Order: sequence, then structure tokens, then C-alpha cells
Amino acid sequence: MTSGHVFIGTSLDGFIARSNDDITWLTQYPTLGEDHGFEAHMARVDGVIMGRGTYEVIRHMTPWYYSKPVLVLSRSLTQSDVPDEIADKVEILAATPHEAMRLVESRGWRAAYVDGGAVIQAFLRAGLIEDFVISRIPVLIGEGVPLFGPLNGDVMLEHVRTTAFPSGLVQAVYRTRR
Amino acid sequence: MTSGHVFIGTSLDGFIARSNDDITWLTQYPTLGEDHGFEAHMARVDGVIMGRGTYEVIRHMTPWYYSKPVLVLSRSLTQSDVPDEIADKVEILAATPHEAMRLVESRGWRAAYVDGGAVIQAFLRAGLIEDFVISRIPVLIGEGVPLFGPLNGDVMLEHVRTTAFPSGLVQAVYRTRR
Repeated sequence: MTSGHVFIGTSLDGFIARSNDDITWLTQYPTLGEDHGFEAHMARVDGVIMGRGTYEVIRHMTPWYYSKPVLVLSRSLTQSDVPDEIADKVEILAATPHEAMRLVESRGWRAAYVDGGAVIQAFLRAGLIEDFVISRIPVLIGEGVPLFGPLNGDVMLEHVRTTAFPSGLVQAVYRTRR
Repeated sequence: MTSGHVFIGTSLDGFIARSNDDITWLTQYPTLGEDHGFEAHMARVDGVIMGRGTYEVIRHMTPWYYSKPVLVLSRSLTQSDVPDEIADKVEILAATPHEAMRLVESRGWRAAYVDGGAVIQAFLRAGLIEDFVISRIPVLIGEGVPLFGPLNGDVMLEHVRTTAFPSGLVQAVYRTRR
């Protein structure tokens, strides 16, 4: 099966966005030109699987952000909602995590970048996340969209490594235990 | 004013206890005899301020855990609820964070160990926490008592240091910015 990989930034209190989806506290945090490994992460995956919420936040970016295929899991959007400019780069799909993974596996993806709070949580509950790269910004925002959510049971992880950057960003890598 | 210091263990998803107050996932995590600095932390504080919830969890420990005075903030307990064996070590007080800090300052405390979810959050909102030592266990428990909660506004922190231990426990130290 294609493996799922998370690469995400959070506040110290575990949010990936404010309740209104604002992420400027994250994107505008001064990271002093540090390389947090996003390009390397993109290089090792074959495409991106994200939820509608994440897609809605990034769809208006010009130029389009991703060089690899993007699958958007949604039961409300359809392919006709995708602007022409990115119609060959973005595919809308109403599917469960397992269905999505089987589809991308049939297309030869070995590794998928799984992005967005609800989608990450659903893939985690389905046992489809292999590792997490979590970059924590040293700010508490109090409320918002949490990275993690309810589970069917405890998920044991293996700590791989943690890197503290001069900017104050601390990046931890965890692998799920099977 | 007496300074407030947090030293606490959490799951990777930010909980300090399960919803039923169980902390065995934390206390029974195999830490390989590592020194995570709790004794050094206790040595630098003059006493402990905790909430009723934390007190209820630890009150039955024999022998009593703390060598320094413990102030329990509660509006439901009274001093007569404290067992005789620890009556000289534990004081129940119905007070706001600022009132509690003024009291312990009048007693000569320079530094207070602030413990328990609700109390930590209240002291943080009151601007009375100087630093956090957060030890993260590599497990996701899905739901429980969160370390952090709603704030009146963003709290900017300064990352002091992070230490990854061989057991997988990762300890991060943050200082609040004033």
C-alpha cells in the first residue's frame, strides 16, 4: 500500500489554523531563511492527498503551489469546481482514506503527502500514516483547528529525531508503530 | 512577584491525563532511568500551587510526594478535608491566581511550581507563568485533559532548549515573552 506522510506546522498548543482558517501566525513566523525540509519532503512523495478545507485555503495561490498531482477528498465539490488553470493538476474525489490510497497505489504512488486536519485524522484512524514531521511555532493561539483528534485507541509512536532551529521552530519526526 | 513555573508531561496530542484522570500512560512509560530534571525543578521552587483536580489524584500517595509546601486552590474543599498526616504540608485556599501569588510572595516564595491543567491555564491567562518544561511522551491518546486551553490573546514564547531522550521522551523548555 502507498504510505502516508504528514508534514505540518502547528502552534505549541497543537493547532494548524485558527478557527477562521487563518494561518498567517504560521506562514508569517520569521524563520530566518531556515530550511525545514519541505522541498525534500515534496521530493520523496508522489503526490498530495488533502481535504476540502485545505484545498479551499490554497486554491487561489498563484502560481499553483504543487508540482505533483493533488487529490482533494470531498463529497461536496466536483471536478467542475476546479479552475481551468489547475484542472490537470487537481482531482476531486469522494472516497474513504482506504479507497483513496488504493486509487493512488494503482497509479504507482509509493508515498503520499497527507495534508489537512480532518484528512490527517481520518488517515491516522485508518492506520494509513507512516510518519509525522511536526514543526512547532513557539506561540499559543488558544483555539483553532487541531492537528490531532479522537482516535479508536491509543497510537504508539516512535520518536525519530527532533531539531530545534535558531528561529525557535522545533521540528519533531515520529513514526507510527504497527 | 513570585514567578510561576510549569513542569509537566503530556501526550503528543497535548493531554496531561485521560478524561477519567488516568495518567498511567504517562507514569508507566518506560523512561530507561533517564533524569528528566524533576528533582532539579523541585529544588529551584519554594512550593507548589495546584488545583483540586491534581490534588485529588495525588492526595492518597504514601509517602507524601512533596518536600515543599503545597497550596491547593479550591472553592469546594476546606482545610478540614486534608488528612492529618499531611495537614502541615497542604493548605487549601479559595483564591484567584493573583491572590495566591501575592500570598506566597508574602511568605517569601521566589518561585512557584504551578501544576494541573485548569490552574496552569488560569495562571497563564493571568500572565503569571514564566516558563514551561513540557515532556512529551510519544503516544496519541485521542482525548483527555488538555494542557493548554482558551486564551485572551496569542501568547508568544521563546524556545529555550529541547532535549530528546533515548526513551523517546522529548522535553522542550519555553519562556513566555513579556
